[in-house]
Amino acid sequence: MKSIANIPDNGKKRLIIVGGGFAGLKLALKLRKSNFQVVLIDKHNYHQFQPLFYQVATSGLEPSAISFPLRKVFQKQKDIHFRIATVEYVDTKQKTIYTDLGLLAYDYLVLAMGGNTNFFGNESIEKHAIPMKSLTEAINLRNTILENFEEALNEVDQQKQESLLNIVIVGGGPTGVELAGALAEMKKYILPKDYPELDFSRMHIHLLEAGEKILNGYSEASSVKAKEYLERLDVKVQLNALVKNYDGKEVELGDGSSISTDSLIWAAGIKANNIEGFPEEVIGRGGRMIVDEYNHLKNHEDIYVIGDMAIMATKDAPKGHPQVAQVAIQQANMLGKNLLRLESGKPMQAFKYKDKGSLATVGRNLAVADLPGFSFQGFFAWILWLFVHLIAILGVKNRVLVFVNWAWSYFTYDQSLRLLINPKKKKRALPQKTI
Amino acid sequence: MKSIANIPDNGKKRLIIVGGGFAGLKLALKLRKSNFQVVLIDKHNYHQFQPLFYQVATSGLEPSAISFPLRKVFQKQKDIHFRIATVEYVDTKQKTIYTDLGLLAYDYLVLAMGGNTNFFGNESIEKHAIPMKSLTEAINLRNTILENFEEALNEVDQQKQESLLNIVIVGGGPTGVELAGALAEMKKYILPKDYPELDFSRMHIHLLEAGEKILNGYSEASSVKAKEYLERLDVKVQLNALVKNYDGKEVELGDGSSISTDSLIWAAGIKANNIEGFPEEVIGRGGRMIVDEYNHLKNHEDIYVIGDMAIMATKDAPKGHPQVAQVAIQQANMLGKNLLRLESGKPMQAFKYKDKGSLATVGRNLAVADLPGFSFQGFFAWILWLFVHLIAILGVKNRVLVFVNWAWSYFTYDQSLRLLINPKKKKRALPQKTI
Repeated sequence: MKSIANIPDNGKKRLIIVGGGFAGLKLALKLRKSNFQVVLIDKHNYHQFQPLFYQVATSGLEPSAISFPLRKVFQKQKDIHFRIATVEYVDTKQKTIYTDLGLLAYDYLVLAMGGNTNFFGNESIEKHAIPMKSLTEAINLRNTILENFEEALNEVDQQKQESLLNIVIVGGGPTGVELAGALAEMKKYILPKDYPELDFSRMHIHLLEAGEKILNGYSEASSVKAKEYLERLDVKVQLNALVKNYDGKEVELGDGSSISTDSLIWAAGIKANNIEGFPEEVIGRGGRMIVDEYNHLKNHEDIYVIGDMAIMATKDAPKGHPQVAQVAIQQANMLGKNLLRLESGKPMQAFKYKDKGSLATVGRNLAVADLPGFSFQGFFAWILWLFVHLIAILGVKNRVLVFVNWAWSYFTYDQSLRLLINPKKKKRALPQKTI
Repeated sequence: MKSIANIPDNGKKRLIIVGGGFAGLKLALKLRKSNFQVVLIDKHNYHQFQPLFYQVATSGLEPSAISFPLRKVFQKQKDIHFRIATVEYVDTKQKTIYTDLGLLAYDYLVLAMGGNTNFFGNESIEKHAIPMKSLTEAINLRNTILENFEEALNEVDQQKQESLLNIVIVGGGPTGVELAGALAEMKKYILPKDYPELDFSRMHIHLLEAGEKILNGYSEASSVKAKEYLERLDVKVQLNALVKNYDGKEVELGDGSSISTDSLIWAAGIKANNIEGFPEEVIGRGGRMIVDEYNHLKNHEDIYVIGDMAIMATKDAPKGHPQVAQVAIQQANMLGKNLLRLESGKPMQAFKYKDKGSLATVGRNLAVADLPGFSFQGFFAWILWLFVHLIAILGVKNRVLVFVNWAWSYFTYDQSLRLLINPKKKKRALPQKTI
């Protein structure tokens, strides 16, 4: 098999980073001025800003506003290489990765491939539910919801119409909560204007959480307030609700009850992306790869794993850190520093997670914030949420565009991105001519 | 066959408009306060601003910035109905349209379905060339070009690499000219930064025109200047160049020469969209439907055709008007007035086209303008072009977004929309494991 073309062997140590998410991108940025030959590989040519996927799904933002072309990171640098490819396999003995573009040997390998939706082995749910772990899936979710409303217009059967209007979200973590809130606001402010022919009092938004509270891991106050905010927006929140089955029309719950809906959104679990070529002993809980406090993969001297894909047991976090952007960014930062130290022969430093807090927004003026030491809810939490996310978005222009969109929506109570571009083509029977 | 659901028969005269382009949308807006029951039907749920497709194709603008949700036109109005559907057939005797959603009877029918790319029956070109007559096609064009650059990185064969880099545009009308100019600027300012591994002196942009000049129908000065501007931007303009064949790799010209390219963009012709159910006698040149000066379809009292789909022979335009937005908008405007006059029993007024002039832009500070009575080229023509297009875009927010994007590109010499979202999936062979 051929090597990936046009990446020169020039005596420099080659460091391959797989994945351009928060972890991989941050690391690539850190190493721009290193002496490594850096090769960044991703399935897409853009970085995705996951925390705002739910706004893409609810027509609040365009995909481009929260994506960043990965090539821009390395503009004008000739010996740093980005390739769109899928990595299938790592030959750890030959120190070579196998991709759909060919082979590539490495001196150091960093795996930062993140995670994907976990359906916990339930095939009926996997087949019919809508996930939201990539930009493409977020657009697909938007299209599905809009298509269902269009379909509802053409439905005369009342029950089928209600099923098209209803939306069920599974998972009471920040993604589920933020999505439920945004959909509830869409129902309140926009849909009745766009579809005056439909009766939206018959549309119900359900948030189902298997545990005893939503926003598990947040402070008690935030968890309680978030539920209160959602209910204020008319979201039906059900705790201790276990989804057993979903056939595309009917959600069956553990207590024997059921809900009719054409749209079940699954935000209830994450599993690490996997890659072939590693023994079972390095794989931990949730498919995550076991690393030490330098993000060194267990028993593999020249391989590092960072972000959602890694699990590092420390004193502070004996079961590993949460799979959130903050951990990914901090690990990438530390690994970047450590690799530069490695180059200059200095010893590495151990990773230590600084929890900067957690935020979640439910709707306009409604958010919860847990900062180290104190927590608060309401308008100021919402302002903090806006500010933190705006700063975190990569690229000044994206920040401007997101800001314009947010300001627009806030003052007009409207979004204008309700476009079905490249929708799934539903095949309808062609009409029969009667003459 | 069933009727389209949930559109009431309530004694009002039903007027169906097929198509939400410049003509259909303008007419719908005009009739918002009429006593007709208006039904608007389109294949998409958005209006497309065609004049800026080329900027979507060259990563300058997002699709959403130049689209407008058709539902917003009728917000809060209960007896005006928009449906996403494809109209297959008109039964003119029963006064009924046949769609993939069902039947619908009309009192008046307005056809405003516009045009599509005309390949003039050349199947090899139709199969391999890239058209740009819809937003989806514009995005597809963007993706194809970006994917070819990515592919070029992985190509070791010099000739194949050049073929991936080269772009040939066929058709020297405003679309071809504007696209060639935008691609030339992309090559000059952006691509060398994004792909420092590639040598862009080996990339060539060709504009092929079958006639004796580009911008046919414009003033001689504008036509000559536009060619000069394009050549200044290093576009190879060939006049009297007839494309005979294209197999996806090699363009064969009438003079026996050929050009290697993986990207042939076809902007050389338009044909009217057609609909079944009409006799041949009402179909004119280019598939356009023959109308009188009230946009009345020949021999059909209750059917009107407006915009690109119609052909109206008048004293000023014995061969019909040009298929441009201005004609569509003015015809819709006049028909709107005439339908309101019809409601109140007044006689209709004949359509008279006011040519407001023609504009075309080649690049930054470079445009040509033909106004009634005088023509000018250069910076002020460019400013006029920007201004006219900004005003013409529907929706204040879209205008703001387009303006931000333009200002950004102008000052930074950069675009940031180079994202391959939902690209065509090229299937590559999976690697063989050697161990």
